Amino acid sequence: METIKKICQGDVRSASRLIRDVEDKIPSAKAKIKKLFPHTGKSFIIGITGAPGAGKSTLIDALIAELRKKKKDIGVLAVDPTSPFTGGAILGDRIRMQRHVEDPGVFVRSLATRGALGGLSAAVGEAIHVLEAMGKEIILIETVGIGQQEIDIINHAHSVIVVLVPGMGDEVQTMKAGIMEIADVFVINKADRAGAKQLHMELLSMLHSAPAAPENWQPPIVMVGDVYKPEAFADKIAELEKKIEEHHTYLQNSGKLVERIYRKTMVEINDALRANIMEPIMYKLQESGELQSMIEKVKNREVDPYSAAEEIAKRFIK
Amino acid sequence: METIKKICQGDVRSASRLIRDVEDKIPSAKAKIKKLFPHTGKSFIIGITGAPGAGKSTLIDALIAELRKKKKDIGVLAVDPTSPFTGGAILGDRIRMQRHVEDPGVFVRSLATRGALGGLSAAVGEAIHVLEAMGKEIILIETVGIGQQEIDIINHAHSVIVVLVPGMGDEVQTMKAGIMEIADVFVINKADRAGAKQLHMELLSMLHSAPAAPENWQPPIVMVGDVYKPEAFADKIAELEKKIEEHHTYLQNSGKLVERIYRKTMVEINDALRANIMEPIMYKLQESGELQSMIEKVKNREVDPYSAAEEIAKRFIK
Repeated sequence: METIKKICQGDVRSASRLIRDVEDKIPSAKAKIKKLFPHTGKSFIIGITGAPGAGKSTLIDALIAELRKKKKDIGVLAVDPTSPFTGGAILGDRIRMQRHVEDPGVFVRSLATRGALGGLSAAVGEAIHVLEAMGKEIILIETVGIGQQEIDIINHAHSVIVVLVPGMGDEVQTMKAGIMEIADVFVINKADRAGAKQLHMELLSMLHSAPAAPENWQPPIVMVGDVYKPEAFADKIAELEKKIEEHHTYLQNSGKLVERIYRKTMVEINDALRANIMEPIMYKLQESGELQSMIEKVKNREVDPYSAAEEIAKRFIK
Repeated sequence: METIKKICQGDVRSASRLIRDVEDKIPSAKAKIKKLFPHTGKSFIIGITGAPGAGKSTLIDALIAELRKKKKDIGVLAVDPTSPFTGGAILGDRIRMQRHVEDPGVFVRSLATRGALGGLSAAVGEAIHVLEAMGKEIILIETVGIGQQEIDIINHAHSVIVVLVPGMGDEVQTMKAGIMEIADVFVINKADRAGAKQLHMELLSMLHSAPAAPENWQPPIVMVGDVYKPEAFADKIAELEKKIEEHHTYLQNSGKLVERIYRKTMVEINDALRANIMEPIMYKLQESGELQSMIEKVKNREVDPYSAAEEIAKRFIK
């Protein structure tokens, strides 16, 4: 297939179109992703998450520049959550990354996860495969620290960077369920602001309250300061890049990379099973009007939802 | 069945035990919930959500006292999210509600949603049914504003109260996907603190930027102040109780209550279908070792996850 060949050669236009088709759930996109699949799995995938306004895009922009010094071929996927109610994207364009547009070694795309209430959708996994097939050595996935997406990133990335900023309630945010456990590298961004030291101390004490075994990875904290003090800023970005690389090496040497790849694969299979089993059954129940009459009966307490579901399951499952 | 009868008579001990069994996923609990189901559906369910530290428990405690003046029979379910990684509860006991322990018209229980990564679990729906069967006229569900749970509350409650506090990054939090859309009543708690006016202005301007049609409900904002100034505090709690009651009346008169009950029912059926269809298939795949070999094959790029899932679906679905 022409498209597949082109994407594997790194063609930006074909890749962009396929990502758009994945986003729009065009049926033919799935067949293409299947054909691309044998060419995937060779990239190192880094997730970057943090609250809106934490400065993730500026950070990623600088990180791209740092990685480009090492001639790495880079893909960036910015995941835009859209409200399940209004359908509108709550984030604007990522104009801060525009300076890399002319660089053929950098491919940046955003992906709207429409209606994916319940975390990062399967579309993210498929879009990542497009970037992998393009031959990107490093893929950066930017997700907004909004609810489930923040924790779901661990299912898509090999390494997770959590970006915090002082004075945004991060002291509370750090306590969020799961967030401490998914971070491989912490960044305290805008570290020249008041409250940065306190946030640093709180993070440290949390990390020490549940210390990693000596052979395990201890998440480092990188303090990134004022973007308008270019030299100091660049030093910190270089430090961040080094920590990411160290974590990559750790994952490889400890066997943890294999574990994470295993989990990623498992999640992908789970998602595919749900799409192939639950979705067609729900569709049939809806088409036949049975779902509607079931809702009515449960609503009127003529049947309980558990018995109704058991009966449906008996009919549909072999 | 003795237990069913007792719960329907409001027996605290039987109800507590069944909620505990639901939480622990004891198989016999499901049969009991089925038997209770015809006795459910008559309560008005109010969800209360907000970030950790927003003062939800104190607010609920005061709201209980206010509702008790009107002789309402009340149930409270405090949903404790537990970390999917550590399994530990991140919230402590809700000691602030203890003063109602002796009051037979108030039943307070907490529910740990272990491993329910991806929002409020089916266990919440089942626990609500226990409280409904007990004959509680009003059920308050407290959820912590952590990710998905915050938005999921809309699937369990008829009316949603969102609690914000100044200076906790709420200015940003209010922008969270979905949060603006699910709130029926806003509370700005600790409104005597610096930043309360600004938060109020920001909320107002957001509400005005997407105004409700004149016949629709316009979410009010209740400013609740210092708990140590008892009179002013009590006035504000009375105001909050009045707004909740107004919203209830609005839901009834506009036909919106019927819509919300429909959605609640639909979610419950969805959850039950997933439990009866996906879970047994996953169990079989795991038992036979097929899931493991599938993961290996996908990991080695011998097969893509989509084709593998299609093949499984063909075998399991009639």
